[in-house]
Amino acid sequence: MKTRVTEMLGIRYPIIQGGMQWVGLAEMASAVSNAGGLGILTGLSQPSPDALRAEIARCREMTDQSFGVNMTIFPSIKPPPYADYIEAIIDSGVTIIETAGNGAAEFFPRLKEAGLTIIHKCVAVRHALTAERMGVDAISIDGFECAGHPGEQDIPGLVLIPAAARALSIPIIASGGIGDGRGMAAALALGAEGVNMGTRFCATVEAPIHANIKQALVTAKEQDTHLIFRTLRNTARVLKNAISDEVVKIEARPGETDFADLQPLVAGVRGKAALASGDVDDGIVTAGLVVGLIDDIPTCEVLLQRMVAECRQHLQRALAYCD
Amino acid sequence: MKTRVTEMLGIRYPIIQGGMQWVGLAEMASAVSNAGGLGILTGLSQPSPDALRAEIARCREMTDQSFGVNMTIFPSIKPPPYADYIEAIIDSGVTIIETAGNGAAEFFPRLKEAGLTIIHKCVAVRHALTAERMGVDAISIDGFECAGHPGEQDIPGLVLIPAAARALSIPIIASGGIGDGRGMAAALALGAEGVNMGTRFCATVEAPIHANIKQALVTAKEQDTHLIFRTLRNTARVLKNAISDEVVKIEARPGETDFADLQPLVAGVRGKAALASGDVDDGIVTAGLVVGLIDDIPTCEVLLQRMVAECRQHLQRALAYCD
Repeated sequence: MKTRVTEMLGIRYPIIQGGMQWVGLAEMASAVSNAGGLGILTGLSQPSPDALRAEIARCREMTDQSFGVNMTIFPSIKPPPYADYIEAIIDSGVTIIETAGNGAAEFFPRLKEAGLTIIHKCVAVRHALTAERMGVDAISIDGFECAGHPGEQDIPGLVLIPAAARALSIPIIASGGIGDGRGMAAALALGAEGVNMGTRFCATVEAPIHANIKQALVTAKEQDTHLIFRTLRNTARVLKNAISDEVVKIEARPGETDFADLQPLVAGVRGKAALASGDVDDGIVTAGLVVGLIDDIPTCEVLLQRMVAECRQHLQRALAYCD
Repeated sequence: MKTRVTEMLGIRYPIIQGGMQWVGLAEMASAVSNAGGLGILTGLSQPSPDALRAEIARCREMTDQSFGVNMTIFPSIKPPPYADYIEAIIDSGVTIIETAGNGAAEFFPRLKEAGLTIIHKCVAVRHALTAERMGVDAISIDGFECAGHPGEQDIPGLVLIPAAARALSIPIIASGGIGDGRGMAAALALGAEGVNMGTRFCATVEAPIHANIKQALVTAKEQDTHLIFRTLRNTARVLKNAISDEVVKIEARPGETDFADLQPLVAGVRGKAALASGDVDDGIVTAGLVVGLIDDIPTCEVLLQRMVAECRQHLQRALAYCD
């Protein structure tokens, strides 16, 4: 396939595996890149900049194709050494970075100076326009459907993608709610030139997570996610399980939710534990609405070939209606 | 164009103007039908079954094309005489009905006996499957983006349309979030065979509402709607204005919302007042997220011709990416 996104990133198919905490390891990224998409290592899944250097080197041994690194950057009281992670990415010779978070812009000048291609992820057209003015190369526009942090505006892709496409000149990658060839066809028709997937890649053979969690994604329907932490204005879309059910109950209580009420539920359990143990109730498991469209656990190669074929078929079918 | 929906309904383009309280009058429905889509009169916008008979007759004088009637049927303590409205539709010779609400199923046998084509609107795949088993002819599947009542599940079209398309055998009409050729192209790619629009048709020359309200829809961005009445489990998507802002504040108060708190704000003002006076703060104005994609006030003829042309263009552009 050929879009501005495939050309810019040097990939065969405009399918990008977005940053995913604890999942974006070399096994995942290399599998996607080998299958013709863009695999992405998640920078902060590594405990230090040096560990990220080692992971980049490991990924390079597993694929000779392009891959990128995700850096999600939020200002915080005790932040990770973001600048050092950025330097690790640059001096490892990685040429593509996916940035996210409202602290990312600070690093755009350094990344541009070093010649990296910047894909910036955002959830609102206004933020996308700001990033475009600051010189990023592409926007990954993240709809209400997405796993993780959809923001607080709740605008789904069907409206957000065309709104972004009308407003921006740089290419758009549609993120959230896409897991098959139909969704990819729709995203391209709406004006995107690529798609970003997270949850769908978690349910692949190569995803470095426990088989039980992959199966939980297959079993889950589109009604089986929760939006949590809305009361903290830090909304996250996660799989329904014992912990997120409890968070929802606390957040529904009259009055202000105190983060102290939520902390015991999420501290130490968020993400990593369940992914490793395979007990879906061991922690918060991030998952998007697209779980409702996931029916199997293919290899990345099979997934991408099928998506591309179905994307073409569904576009042809739709175009035939127009005769 | 040709899909199962155009064939079934006898229309040139698979574009349906959904039921809209106070807007679905003969002026609106005839304009859409004359433009090649399916116009729909809203049954309960008429004060009595006889008034509906008269409105159907008036619409028939304004178009020689197919049009339908919407009946939204909820069980209630003091319901309108639904059965009499249904008989008025049948004996007026209308052949297409759009049904909605969990009281609609009761009337399916009578409607089928009378030979009407039933388009049933629902917000969940499970309900769509039930309606299919009961013999309706098409499903209008209504996503989180939609104006009016999106239900409580919050599944947007990007996921809901393909989920419905996978599950159902009868044709699907995509509803919610669609206002231009890009959205139509996406809906068809996702598996729908037609699109339903409400808010977009309110911003047309022929819509029988005050020009100031049409302008308010043009001005509004995708962030400019509220979901109200969620605390009553009767969620509605409406335009942000002084009244809906106030409802949101009441619903955010700690503890249970009492309908009595909301009643003074909505009683007597909902819908009709603002639409007629042109003062957007005169009442609750139903509007979908698609307001963010509405930039002008064309005739229905111009709107449909443009949508169909753009739909084809965007599908061709997307398909070219697949070469």
